[in-house]
Amino acid sequence: MSGGETRDKLVQEGLRLLLREGYSATGVKAVVDAAGVPKGSFYHFFPQGKEGFAAEVIELYAAHATRVRKELLLDSRRPPLERLRSYFEHYVEHFRVLGFKEGCLLGNLSAEVSDMSEGIRARLDAAFSAWESDVARVVAEAMERGDLEPRVSPAHIARHLINGWEGALLRMKSEKTQAALEEFLIVTFEVLLAPRKAGA
Amino acid sequence: MSGGETRDKLVQEGLRLLLREGYSATGVKAVVDAAGVPKGSFYHFFPQGKEGFAAEVIELYAAHATRVRKELLLDSRRPPLERLRSYFEHYVEHFRVLGFKEGCLLGNLSAEVSDMSEGIRARLDAAFSAWESDVARVVAEAMERGDLEPRVSPAHIARHLINGWEGALLRMKSEKTQAALEEFLIVTFEVLLAPRKAGA
Repeated sequence: MSGGETRDKLVQEGLRLLLREGYSATGVKAVVDAAGVPKGSFYHFFPQGKEGFAAEVIELYAAHATRVRKELLLDSRRPPLERLRSYFEHYVEHFRVLGFKEGCLLGNLSAEVSDMSEGIRARLDAAFSAWESDVARVVAEAMERGDLEPRVSPAHIARHLINGWEGALLRMKSEKTQAALEEFLIVTFEVLLAPRKAGA
Repeated sequence: MSGGETRDKLVQEGLRLLLREGYSATGVKAVVDAAGVPKGSFYHFFPQGKEGFAAEVIELYAAHATRVRKELLLDSRRPPLERLRSYFEHYVEHFRVLGFKEGCLLGNLSAEVSDMSEGIRARLDAAFSAWESDVARVVAEAMERGDLEPRVSPAHIARHLINGWEGALLRMKSEKTQAALEEFLIVTFEVLLAPRKAGA
């Protein structure tokens, strides 16, 4: 493997382990063993150790999430609320296939690590902000088209949706069913973002 | 200390540590050191080790949460939606005092441990269910009084509220501000649970 390939392999295995085991339970040894590289390689690429490494893993995860949003959420040929629904439905299917495990790396590390590492907290905050900004764009579009009553700002709605989704993922993990995710869709699209009633 | 006092002290210190550090980062040694008791005491009271111990800590946390709900949420002398709001506002103040750290033990352990321990997962599930059931009672009361339009079931609304709150706590931890909690209150009470409009 070239240096770049070794580094990529470490970050990819780190992502897999952090999603499965969490931050504290993932040791550097487990990461290098999974990547099949000597421990020295890890500290060559990540001299700051596990904390800096986890920040890179968050970057990889956030970059992937950004691509999914670009594809499913920001395709302006479809009506905004329809895109928003497809976007969340895509992830319901993703977690069904995974057996309702793992959840969202951003939420998991917010719970476990954001009080302990300022570096990781700042990366999580940035990844959430980018996500919120994309969802707010779609909500604003729905309001501009008159599909949604502008009772509170698009940013408030976007943050509320993302937080509701993150909480539903926690409940999914504790129930090991898709009930919380389905209820998120029902309450979000039948109540919170329900279309304006004619004459109301 | 008597045996019962030692056991209680271990569980109390365990709660403090699990909230601050998470599950994997909290060793048995840290718990016995914090409680000032020999390590043998821990295994005397918790022969199943850390996993069984954590289940007891969840019980203590859930019992406290149940008392708070009884006091703030289920006092039938006040209108249901007013109680629901006071209940969440009580916790906004709690987390403000804590510096937006820790969050909810149930959510944190759902994120970190529910894929790894079936025993802990089941305790978390039970604690969430009891919480959902209390909140659903208040939502049902609001619907019966006509304060809230019965568009979806009280149980769906209750679960959505709790998950939204849990997600807002994750965002609070990654932002270290109360913005996500305040927005949860705004969107919940001005949109999701907004009173029926006259004539609508």
